[in-house]
Amino acid sequence: MRDKNSYLSSLNDGREVYYRGKKIEDLVNHEILKISANHSAGIYDLKDRIFYDNELNSNISKYYKIPRNSNDLLDRHNMIFNHTLEFNGVFNISQAIGSDALFALMITTKKIDKNKGTKYFERVRKFYEYVAKNDLTLTTAQTDVKGDRSKRPSEQVDKDMYVRIVEKRNDGIIVKGAKAHTTQSIFADEIIVIPTRAMTEKDSDYAVAFAIPTNTKGVKMIARPIDEVEGNSSSILSRLDFEVETITIFDNVFVPWDRVFLAGEYEFAGLLANLFATYHRFTAISYRSAMSDLFIGTGSLMAKANGIQDSRHVREDLLNMIMYKEILKMSAVSAAVNPVIDEGIAIPNSLYTNVGKLYTNSHFHELITSLIDISGGILATMPSKEDIENEIEKQYIEKYLRGAIEGKDRIKLIDLAKELSASNLSGYWLTTMIHAEGSIEASKIALLRNYNLQNAEEMIMKILKSEK
Amino acid sequence: MRDKNSYLSSLNDGREVYYRGKKIEDLVNHEILKISANHSAGIYDLKDRIFYDNELNSNISKYYKIPRNSNDLLDRHNMIFNHTLEFNGVFNISQAIGSDALFALMITTKKIDKNKGTKYFERVRKFYEYVAKNDLTLTTAQTDVKGDRSKRPSEQVDKDMYVRIVEKRNDGIIVKGAKAHTTQSIFADEIIVIPTRAMTEKDSDYAVAFAIPTNTKGVKMIARPIDEVEGNSSSILSRLDFEVETITIFDNVFVPWDRVFLAGEYEFAGLLANLFATYHRFTAISYRSAMSDLFIGTGSLMAKANGIQDSRHVREDLLNMIMYKEILKMSAVSAAVNPVIDEGIAIPNSLYTNVGKLYTNSHFHELITSLIDISGGILATMPSKEDIENEIEKQYIEKYLRGAIEGKDRIKLIDLAKELSASNLSGYWLTTMIHAEGSIEASKIALLRNYNLQNAEEMIMKILKSEK
Amino acid sequence: MRDKNSYLSSLNDGREVYYRGKKIEDLVNHEILKISANHSAGIYDLKDRIFYDNELNSNISKYYKIPRNSNDLLDRHNMIFNHTLEFNGVFNISQAIGSDALFALMITTKKIDKNKGTKYFERVRKFYEYVAKNDLTLTTAQTDVKGDRSKRPSEQVDKDMYVRIVEKRNDGIIVKGAKAHTTQSIFADEIIVIPTRAMTEKDSDYAVAFAIPTNTKGVKMIARPIDEVEGNSSSILSRLDFEVETITIFDNVFVPWDRVFLAGEYEFAGLLANLFATYHRFTAISYRSAMSDLFIGTGSLMAKANGIQDSRHVREDLLNMIMYKEILKMSAVSAAVNPVIDEGIAIPNSLYTNVGKLYTNSHFHELITSLIDISGGILATMPSKEDIENEIEKQYIEKYLRGAIEGKDRIKLIDLAKELSASNLSGYWLTTMIHAEGSIEASKIALLRNYNLQNAEEMIMKILKSEK
Amino acid sequence: MRDKNSYLSSLNDGREVYYRGKKIEDLVNHEILKISANHSAGIYDLKDRIFYDNELNSNISKYYKIPRNSNDLLDRHNMIFNHTLEFNGVFNISQAIGSDALFALMITTKKIDKNKGTKYFERVRKFYEYVAKNDLTLTTAQTDVKGDRSKRPSEQVDKDMYVRIVEKRNDGIIVKGAKAHTTQSIFADEIIVIPTRAMTEKDSDYAVAFAIPTNTKGVKMIARPIDEVEGNSSSILSRLDFEVETITIFDNVFVPWDRVFLAGEYEFAGLLANLFATYHRFTAISYRSAMSDLFIGTGSLMAKANGIQDSRHVREDLLNMIMYKEILKMSAVSAAVNPVIDEGIAIPNSLYTNVGKLYTNSHFHELITSLIDISGGILATMPSKEDIENEIEKQYIEKYLRGAIEGKDRIKLIDLAKELSASNLSGYWLTTMIHAEGSIEASKIALLRNYNLQNAEEMIMKILKSEK
Repeated sequence: MRDKNSYLSSLNDGREVYYRGKKIEDLVNHEILKISANHSAGIYDLKDRIFYDNELNSNISKYYKIPRNSNDLLDRHNMIFNHTLEFNGVFNISQAIGSDALFALMITTKKIDKNKGTKYFERVRKFYEYVAKNDLTLTTAQTDVKGDRSKRPSEQVDKDMYVRIVEKRNDGIIVKGAKAHTTQSIFADEIIVIPTRAMTEKDSDYAVAFAIPTNTKGVKMIARPIDEVEGNSSSILSRLDFEVETITIFDNVFVPWDRVFLAGEYEFAGLLANLFATYHRFTAISYRSAMSDLFIGTGSLMAKANGIQDSRHVREDLLNMIMYKEILKMSAVSAAVNPVIDEGIAIPNSLYTNVGKLYTNSHFHELITSLIDISGGILATMPSKEDIENEIEKQYIEKYLRGAIEGKDRIKLIDLAKELSASNLSGYWLTTMIHAEGSIEASKIALLRNYNLQNAEEMIMKILKSEK
Repeated sequence: MRDKNSYLSSLNDGREVYYRGKKIEDLVNHEILKISANHSAGIYDLKDRIFYDNELNSNISKYYKIPRNSNDLLDRHNMIFNHTLEFNGVFNISQAIGSDALFALMITTKKIDKNKGTKYFERVRKFYEYVAKNDLTLTTAQTDVKGDRSKRPSEQVDKDMYVRIVEKRNDGIIVKGAKAHTTQSIFADEIIVIPTRAMTEKDSDYAVAFAIPTNTKGVKMIARPIDEVEGNSSSILSRLDFEVETITIFDNVFVPWDRVFLAGEYEFAGLLANLFATYHRFTAISYRSAMSDLFIGTGSLMAKANGIQDSRHVREDLLNMIMYKEILKMSAVSAAVNPVIDEGIAIPNSLYTNVGKLYTNSHFHELITSLIDISGGILATMPSKEDIENEIEKQYIEKYLRGAIEGKDRIKLIDLAKELSASNLSGYWLTTMIHAEGSIEASKIALLRNYNLQNAEEMIMKILKSEK
Repeated sequence: MRDKNSYLSSLNDGREVYYRGKKIEDLVNHEILKISANHSAGIYDLKDRIFYDNELNSNISKYYKIPRNSNDLLDRHNMIFNHTLEFNGVFNISQAIGSDALFALMITTKKIDKNKGTKYFERVRKFYEYVAKNDLTLTTAQTDVKGDRSKRPSEQVDKDMYVRIVEKRNDGIIVKGAKAHTTQSIFADEIIVIPTRAMTEKDSDYAVAFAIPTNTKGVKMIARPIDEVEGNSSSILSRLDFEVETITIFDNVFVPWDRVFLAGEYEFAGLLANLFATYHRFTAISYRSAMSDLFIGTGSLMAKANGIQDSRHVREDLLNMIMYKEILKMSAVSAAVNPVIDEGIAIPNSLYTNVGKLYTNSHFHELITSLIDISGGILATMPSKEDIENEIEKQYIEKYLRGAIEGKDRIKLIDLAKELSASNLSGYWLTTMIHAEGSIEASKIALLRNYNLQNAEEMIMKILKSEK
Repeated sequence: MRDKNSYLSSLNDGREVYYRGKKIEDLVNHEILKISANHSAGIYDLKDRIFYDNELNSNISKYYKIPRNSNDLLDRHNMIFNHTLEFNGVFNISQAIGSDALFALMITTKKIDKNKGTKYFERVRKFYEYVAKNDLTLTTAQTDVKGDRSKRPSEQVDKDMYVRIVEKRNDGIIVKGAKAHTTQSIFADEIIVIPTRAMTEKDSDYAVAFAIPTNTKGVKMIARPIDEVEGNSSSILSRLDFEVETITIFDNVFVPWDRVFLAGEYEFAGLLANLFATYHRFTAISYRSAMSDLFIGTGSLMAKANGIQDSRHVREDLLNMIMYKEILKMSAVSAAVNPVIDEGIAIPNSLYTNVGKLYTNSHFHELITSLIDISGGILATMPSKEDIENEIEKQYIEKYLRGAIEGKDRIKLIDLAKELSASNLSGYWLTTMIHAEGSIEASKIALLRNYNLQNAEEMIMKILKSEK
């Protein structure tokens, strides 16, 4: 199987990446981005990540195992949970998001083919085999930049606010537009593009899905600045693991037909978008429950460091964190135990997935405020790492920042607690926890639209009829 | 198997029951209490409630099936959920709470016997077989009246604030004290008594568990008034189903040795109390998720009746109700899927059970406030049933209380919504949702005490060590 | 000035009142309603309620003092707050709501007269002098029954869903319709009717305001059942003080012109509705802050009775109650200190009034859940008063319900705590706190519509321009 | 009066300041710190900041006006509110916190002098006149570093965890210890030091208050790193205004007797700490209500930029922000309107001050999460300023980040929204809003300890006695 080094050495392949206003030629050795490159590459170092797949007659990554039943989904949940812990509480998206999209594409294209007589499924399957057998990393680009949120794609002033087909040719299609929030795309071998929402007939040009290599001509990726490392010399976690977000631009990009998975069948855009969302939200609640341990662990250690572990308000803070983690866990377990099997593939229960998703959107800030409450005001006023490296200052800082433990040990905890709850990193997280994998509002709409209210209504009708 | 009539005809057996200041001789035909007697008896009319138990070589009620694995627990959850729906969203406790106590007693007595050389398990087993084969109903009396909450049992001014052994004799023990909040005890064949908390050596006399027939001499049961029927002529649900709560007094009651399951082994009082709590909280999250449908169904129908089903605040209200129900469901499923097997018996996962329990304690009021928000101020000012029966008033009331539906249909919905959210019944429910099966505070303590913080702390220690 | 007895003796004047399906001839001696009659009459027993008004050259009730400045509003707030405490935490609406409407009518009619050349103000002024000099009680009927909430008045299937003018005659108008939630109307001398919302031209017939004696022909009042007294023999507070709500029907009622204050000038319906809402919400936050003392006092005493006054969760409960009370107080003080003076009359600041209003709508349930949390599960399972009157039971109940205080004292506290937080009364309160004086949704809309966002936006524009 | 330049030119006077591990000789021209120096100096450019004080027979800054009544407190509130708006929503602490301490010292020392026969008040008064007449800036250092929070000052392993008197000499005292969270101390002319809490007799050495020039020998100030400027090239607000926090170390610092205001009178440490807290919390709710406009203004503009200003969830977000701002406003107004006059000085009502304080502690995160919710996920993935300065990238970014407004305008708003809600700045703010001016826990304790529960309890006793 592919190993870490062969993966890393493949990255500088001409892909067009910008960081802080510069085109980056060497992604692997860039002072900041290399941290994230190594994070991505870390997936190839994981133990027990490979299994022999009878369907493909090949060893492949477990991420590419097509879930056929509850157990497969439970395994996938546990894998994502455990891998997140391996990477210090930071999600490793390299093969997760891409496989989420592949499963959604398999189910959707089977239905399109039946309905329209197309041959999309074959293409998806072929792409899947290529990816799995070559152990590739994938990103999925879904969220369009959207322009005026009160207007549909075809109603926008600038027609490129959603990725669209600008030309259909004999050999393929030309697409144009931009996707926001594509995570780790700069380290992915391939990019899968899918629609962000349901489409109407007028928006047919926007009903498009495809996959292309990251270094395809016309693909331009502008990465967000990693201020949490560059500005904060005291950061700890971000120097070990982070993932890069980009805006990914498709400037008249050519996609050959065998990589096109949807091209105008607007009636299926919503299904594809929703199926991916369900898989990816299942992934999200899995990694986020693991990620919570960063807060629980730091909170618990910090409480002891401050000598306040028995205060009831501190216990209340810890409980809030635990409730957050375990409600996510419960939603993942319940979604896996009650799947829908469609086209032979197991889909996590969308109700429980969305309940967990909505809970994380609405409550992540409690991890942050609880950790701040435990840690104290020192998060706002902590001297820098440079101060601690100055011998004169060091003696004062270490003397005066002791708690129920030594100053030098408490300082490290403070630095980490600050990074987790009062920094660019926490701001970035808070935003992604509210918006990633669909906004709060989108989750609420999805949850209510699909909820079966009829059973409950019928019980009430029965009661009213049997009134005594 | 036992049927409804033979059960009902057995109730007037001399048990000492008081209601509204009167000793009740005929429980079955009492104008108010008969509703609850029939509710209890309804368990014998349920379809598919019987199975052939290989352990006992006998047909028995599914409630008495000893859970051996995840599937047994999932079945039990689904049974309680479905039976609650059968009884119009009102829990039927008749065989549930007693079996919860029996499972806890089986596990605990095995451990006592091993540790102390006693023979308690045999007695529990014999009692269990008697109950199961005769298809009896059981209540469990756990919560002592407690007196001054800042003092332990033996420190109380009046020593009888917790049920205690006042005499050990050759043929048995004499017990004294009172248990609060015993549900449906007046309709139970037998009462199981267990400790309410962990005990220290000084409190040995209070470490007592036993089972006795409800009509045992010295047992006195004072029932709460059913104001929701007596005062509210417009009540609907309470005329169909309710459960009676009592204070159950043990006035120097004799218990023969073969019905004594704990008598001084104070070290095991806490284990027994906790095991019962875990089983019974699992029961609670199961019936409460079903009970939520009362609010969801009424809320959804009322929204349509008022013509506001598309208002975003109404949708928000419905979502709150749905989140409540499904988080309980998720906790039950997760608790069943991740059991602890102890002494060969499957115990629901206590972490997930307590997370669900804590969620219901803290959020039940949202069902009430959401339903009120949807229904409107009319819940506070609705005329009585007598008004609607007066022909002159009727025409006005029906004319003026129309919404998006006819007045006479909306009136019934209003009456039910009022009963569910703005009445004695809702007050009773709100109290039990906060306090039953252990108070919020007790749940928090249990949850945090047993939580594994070490894994998370270790991840943080690892991060601090690998700081770059 | 008028005294209690002359007021009471004036009540049985032929007004058409229904209670529990019966037409009530004697309001003063009716077993249930007399409590509320005496509550209403209690206003005439208050000390210091009269002052010499220079405008009218007469002694009048302070409720009828037209507020001219901040101090008048602060005095009015303090009067309502203190009177509510006098009546055991229960609001006395007898002259409050009517004067709220009179102030709103004075301001609005001055503007109509200026704009339309009408003479409404003179009529309002004359009615005001009649009311003030005769020391009358008034109700205000605002909330229409509304029918389908998604439709405007003129769009309803039944045109009478909002009170409307069905005929204009030489001597006056004929009105038809019904108002919900009219508090204490059955004990009021006069009823003021005003619109519930802004109206468009199509709804002109619904733009109507007037005042008539309660015993006017065609006025029919159907009172809500007082289940909190009739069903709950243990109730304490409701046997001392309560206010009756009615649906008030106008079945082709004649109103002479000198009592008509708005008749078709639809452009002013919104202003009148809003001005009344502002005055009445100011009244509401004033009495509700006083009413909170019922919960704070009972909570504090109950905490001591249970021996848990030092538990942190109990202190948290008390704090929640205190925050509720004081935020209401703060909003009333701020509204009084920052009034708008319009047409020479001081209007409480509508922003602060609405902030307080919205806080009480959204947080009243915390008073209830906090008191339940402190009191314990006994609220759900307390025996009835009849049980305590039975000598056999009494000894057991008093023995076993002791806490850190004697049983017989704790029992009374439990009964009161139950009535306040787990009864029909608390359900009625919870509904009115959410809906009375305008629903949560209505308050939110009002608050945001009138909020000045421009200053804040301008600061941001300035910052963006000065970007460095 | 003093002007901006003379103030700035006085700053480089040998005071010992460290930033990022370096001793800073030139505070005024330091690339980062100069922003904050100019912010501080900005106070001298304010219009209408001077008044003629009859007590001092001199023009002085309004900050040094001793409040004698409600109006003085209302004026002070409005001044702080308006000045905060002047400085782009960022508090200017330069003369505010020092005057808060001076008022508290005046009241406390009068009481000590009466009680102990000391002459402290005279010294405070002399210092006050010196400060006021010379128009100085002041910092106040209150919060000790505290060590093990479960131990009192004299119980700590290291005795210097709270600032203490290590020697009393003829000419003065020697103090040692460190104060955390001293805001803008590096730009203050003088530092006032007061105790952080009540002291017992054993902690007498820790009962110490004094004032010294910032450049006093032995005073060392270590500033927090301004990561929000250094790391985030796109920051906007922090390039205009910020305040520097330091840990301020007292390394055997000599204080002459005429600058010592408390030296061992431990019984008064608590009073002094609390009085300062009350004044400073009044200041806090004043500036924080103004600061909210940053979020309200950005939220409102961003909603329009995204085309979602009419979505109900966006309106809900705006309402949350408005409620936050106005509840703070209400608490300040109510505290000013209901002062306590002690020793001739008006103290803001501590109940309302603490209610507002507690509200800001507990709800500030809603400003952040609401702004994130409105702004969208782009806050997490926004390219850097350097990217926008690269011409190739610029065209793409501006094209694709348009909303309902042009891309280049929306980009600026996004940058500001990110800074306010998802950056080091928002993390710093969130921490200070939770902990500054006393933690949540401290506020709760203070509020409950001083609350009058007796009135409410008496009303309940009255009700129970009049039970019918």
